[in-house]
Amino acid sequence: MTVPKLDLVLERIVDVSPELVWKAWTRPEHLKHWFTPRPWTTVECEIDLRPGGIFRTVMRSPEGADFPNLGCYLEIVANRKLVWTDLLEPGFRPARREPGPNCPFRFTAVILIEPHGSGTKYTAIVMHEDEQSRKRHEDMGFHDGWGTALDQLVAHMTETGEGT
Amino acid sequence: MTVPKLDLVLERIVDVSPELVWKAWTRPEHLKHWFTPRPWTTVECEIDLRPGGIFRTVMRSPEGADFPNLGCYLEIVANRKLVWTDLLEPGFRPARREPGPNCPFRFTAVILIEPHGSGTKYTAIVMHEDEQSRKRHEDMGFHDGWGTALDQLVAHMTETGEGT
Repeated sequence: MTVPKLDLVLERIVDVSPELVWKAWTRPEHLKHWFTPRPWTTVECEIDLRPGGIFRTVMRSPEGADFPNLGCYLEIVANRKLVWTDLLEPGFRPARREPGPNCPFRFTAVILIEPHGSGTKYTAIVMHEDEQSRKRHEDMGFHDGWGTALDQLVAHMTETGEGT
Repeated sequence: MTVPKLDLVLERIVDVSPELVWKAWTRPEHLKHWFTPRPWTTVECEIDLRPGGIFRTVMRSPEGADFPNLGCYLEIVANRKLVWTDLLEPGFRPARREPGPNCPFRFTAVILIEPHGSGTKYTAIVMHEDEQSRKRHEDMGFHDGWGTALDQLVAHMTETGEGT
């Protein structure tokens, strides 16, 4: 149930299996390869895959500045659905940091993964607190950013293969 | 794992079973009887007991003013643990309302229910975003308020009995 004025949505058919998309999102050794559009990199990733568990990343800019992100998983349906938010810290604790230069908005993200032929129908829904946050996220390049990251996910997981 | 400067905690041994405490918290027809220290009343209660499900109440002041609360369940362990937050709306959507006169702070609440003899060790932990919110909640009478509500819970469930 999306709300157009508050949500950003990326929907794509990709040519990797739901199982590989799931691995890409839930294993740090994979996620680091694709999560941040190059030349940015993801230099740290911590995943505790249970409701209330930590989802933490550190993104590094081409200039070498680090941008930490701390969130908490909310719903986990293996190979189908992943939900997390940065409004809560691990253990569902209200996030302590204030929105600032490194965190201009907060959101809950829902990744939906559905079988589609031999590939996957991939839907990312990002829900914001207000219209201003949604607009800021869109202006920062949500569609390009999440789209490029998804391209990187597909390339990495295709190379890595089912055996991983 | 509590953080003293951010959390408020009420811990009590009560003389009703864990199962009755659970019913009191999870069934609207019970919750309305005890949730708000009298002469305040709880005039509406909506419960969808699953992660992401709605927890909504309306409290009415003695003067007849209504104060709505909207939140979302996060973790549900029957007869043992209940977690919800008002930082998120149903479906884990970031809460849209701004803190204001009706909502001076936001929180995640954890209710722990443990068997203790024929009764229950009852622990309510309320986690806040910052020290100021914790203090405001304490100054509004957290301990008296939640303690009185618990007294009302015990009285109501004792009267209602195990058969409900």
